Parts: sequence; structure tokens; C-alpha cells
Amino acid sequence: MTAKRKKLYEGKAKVIFAGTTDDTLIQYFKDDATAYNAQKHAVLHGKGVLNNAISCHIMTLLADAGIKHHLIRQISPREQLIRKCTIIPVEVVVRNIATGSMVARLGGAHIPIKSGTPLKTPMVEYYLKEDALNDPIITEDHIVEFALASREEITFMRLTALAINHFLRNIFHDINITLVDFKLEFGRANHPLPDDPPLILADEISPDNCRLWDKATGDSKDKDRFRQDLGNLVEAYQDIATRLGLTITEKHYD
Amino acid sequence: MTAKRKKLYEGKAKVIFAGTTDDTLIQYFKDDATAYNAQKHAVLHGKGVLNNAISCHIMTLLADAGIKHHLIRQISPREQLIRKCTIIPVEVVVRNIATGSMVARLGGAHIPIKSGTPLKTPMVEYYLKEDALNDPIITEDHIVEFALASREEITFMRLTALAINHFLRNIFHDINITLVDFKLEFGRANHPLPDDPPLILADEISPDNCRLWDKATGDSKDKDRFRQDLGNLVEAYQDIATRLGLTITEKHYD
Repeated sequence: MTAKRKKLYEGKAKVIFAGTTDDTLIQYFKDDATAYNAQKHAVLHGKGVLNNAISCHIMTLLADAGIKHHLIRQISPREQLIRKCTIIPVEVVVRNIATGSMVARLGGAHIPIKSGTPLKTPMVEYYLKEDALNDPIITEDHIVEFALASREEITFMRLTALAINHFLRNIFHDINITLVDFKLEFGRANHPLPDDPPLILADEISPDNCRLWDKATGDSKDKDRFRQDLGNLVEAYQDIATRLGLTITEKHYD
Repeated sequence: MTAKRKKLYEGKAKVIFAGTTDDTLIQYFKDDATAYNAQKHAVLHGKGVLNNAISCHIMTLLADAGIKHHLIRQISPREQLIRKCTIIPVEVVVRNIATGSMVARLGGAHIPIKSGTPLKTPMVEYYLKEDALNDPIITEDHIVEFALASREEITFMRLTALAINHFLRNIFHDINITLVDFKLEFGRANHPLPDDPPLILADEISPDNCRLWDKATGDSKDKDRFRQDLGNLVEAYQDIATRLGLTITEKHYD
């Protein structure tokens, strides 16, 4: 990161700087890890570099599969040049296996799911991106009623999320990883291109917002290592990067 | 209530007894008021008698409008004979105006609603009926995935709830009351009749599960008087009964 960049927004794990042109931004990956709405926080050396590399790799594969996203290119170990878009304040979650907040919220007498219960069908959920409210789950009707996105945009997000799930499951299956669930964000491109869909995929796809379980051992290779105090988070992210064929190693973390 | 009845289930505000035949039950209305998942409790003399009368009246009007429900007839001041059905463990909520849990859950920077904000479109929400989980909101996908109801049953509940909303709004409008929101429950008839729809309306429709605001003063004429310690709950329910043309008065409360 150079000191010259103009910081526009700082989130929990990333910083957004002004880009090189009016229609671009720079997304910078920090080493900060947070959980439970930032009640828990740590700095884990190397996480930002690994997430940037993993996310760039996956986004590039997704583009090859026809999914339009905001990434233009990686420009440094911690930075990506991205297209400027207005983020829809809705987190789109796809789940293949019930765990985490789904089990905590719904598991009981009527819905006897425990962590690890496979879902019959991949499930799409929407959460309002609002820390002050603890990112509450919302329905398509809420999204439309409160004008967060149009019905057409919701359908696009839903179908794109399911297509990405199908694609990512195969990518991770090939490296002996089960894709348990993941979170996506979408945005409206501020400078739309002729062949843009209604929304483009934004944010990142990394072990920070995917749950990834080793198929052989069941070990978490994702941010649950931090949430659940399992330790060795950076080693797990490094393992994912290595299995994906990335040449990044510990010496690149600075 | 006679001592001979066999108690099958006791809820927070009602008791279910065995019926007069194998396909019936008796629904008994208690004076108990609870809120916030029964953390708050009181016994309010007359509430049960008023709710029984109001619910019987409204259910009868709904039947005239073509809505099939479980009520056979009122058999005493606190008792109804009802058809036996298996309740879907999903509370169906229809909202015309944002207030209560909707505002608490969603009102903020992205959804700037305050209590009393009218919705552009009546909103249907589903909540899992499970006290131990604080009745969490769930989506249609959750309901189908976890086999609480079929997609066809959900569509039936949704459309029926919206039809009931339309009908009830007019009933309450005519007595100078705004129908803010309400909660419904549906069940599968254990002994279906030839002309039964997939589900029949069950539970009750009363000021315990409707929010009713006086059009002139804005006063709550519903259980919010208890939730918010506004006092005079029974007087408010009595006012609703009187406006609906019921002849019940304080002398009938015992």
C-alpha cells in the first residue's frame, strides 16, 4: 500500500481506496480477523495476502465460467483493482450443510438439525448488512418492500449464487475440500458495460467468507478456526492456497 | 369448563381438551396474558371470555367469506368445539404497518422504518413456532427444506393470509380500527372433508394476536397494552367486542 492512496472506507477486514480512474477502486486486504460482529478481534499475519490471492484466483475462475464480477486484476500482494459499484446491502448466503448460525437459530424440536447435517437442496438466505442490528436474516419480500433491491435483482442474485455454488463445489471437491457454505455480495456497476448483467459479484471469495472442511479429516480450513479458537488459521488458509495451486508461501506474507 | 374434560395440551393462553367425538377438540380460553416468550405473565379477568367471543365472531364472518377454519361452534363462554387438526409449526404473520419486532429487527440505516410506518404492500412473514428458540423468523425455503410444510401448503397459507387480511381490514375499518398486523396458524385436518382446502385456519383471531389501533386516537386495542404496560387491556378488548356488535359485557366474564 502506498501512502498516496485516498482511503474511502475501512471495513473490518478490508480497506477501499480511490482507484486509478473514476470507474475503479482499490480493495486492500488487511490481516485483521473479526467475529461475532467484531466483538472478537485479532491480527493474523499473512491472512490478507492469502485472501487476496485466493479471492483473485477464484474470481478469475468464475469469470471463465461466465460470472461477471468486480475484479479487474491483482495489483499487489494485498491489493486488487476493482470496478466501482454500489453494493446492495444484502449478504447472500448459500448453504450446502447446516452449521453455525443456521443451527443456532433453527435447530430444535421442529427442525432437528445438528452442525454437519447436509441439506437436501442448497439453500439461499439473505441477511441485511447492518452491524448495529447484528446482520438480521431478511426475506425477499423485505428486500423488495424496503427497496434494497428489485425483484429482478433478487432473482439474479439467487440464481447466480446457486450457479457459483455449483461451480465452487467442484473446484473445492477437486482439492479434497467440502464447500459447506459461503457469503456473497453484489453491486450495481457505477459505469455499466454493454454486456453487464443487472448486478456484478463484488467483495471477495476466500476462507473468510466460505466454510471449507477437509474431506479426509473434517478439519475447518476457514474463519471458524478463529471463531472457535481452533488456532492455526493462517496455516489453514495457506493450505487452501497451496491446494488451489497458488505459489504463495509464508515468505510472501509481508 | 367441566372437570370431566381430558386435557391434552396447555398453552400460554389456551387449553386443548378432548372433544365430543374423535374428530373434534375443545379449545378453552384462559385469562392468562403472556409476552416476550412468557417472561412476562399476568391473569386478566375477562380476557378469555372476550377472546373466545371475538374469535368465534370473526371466524364465522371468515367462513361466510369462503375461508375454511377449524371452528365448529362456541359451546360455552370460554370454550369452542373445533375440528381436530395437526398444526403446522409456523406462525404466519401479515403486516400492514411496521411496528413491534419488525422495527426492532430491521429498522436502521438501510431500512429507516419507525413504528407506525405503513408498508407499501401487505407483508407476509413466517416464524417457527418454537419458544425455546424465541420463535425465529424463517423463509419459505426453510419451511420446505425442513419439511414443516410443502411448497403448495406455503402458497396456500400465503394467499389465504393475504385474503384474510383484505377481509379483516374492512371489518375493522368499519368499526374505526386500523388492522396493523396479525398472526395466523394453519393445520392439516385429521379427518378431511370432501371440500377441504390443503389446510384449514386454526388457533384464534383476537386482540391477543392482532394489532388493532383506534383510527381516531391511535390507541392500541390489543395485547400491546400488556406488552407495553399501558393498562386497561380488558377494557380495550371489551371495546373491540362492543364495536363488533357482540352483546358480551363485564357481567359475562366469569
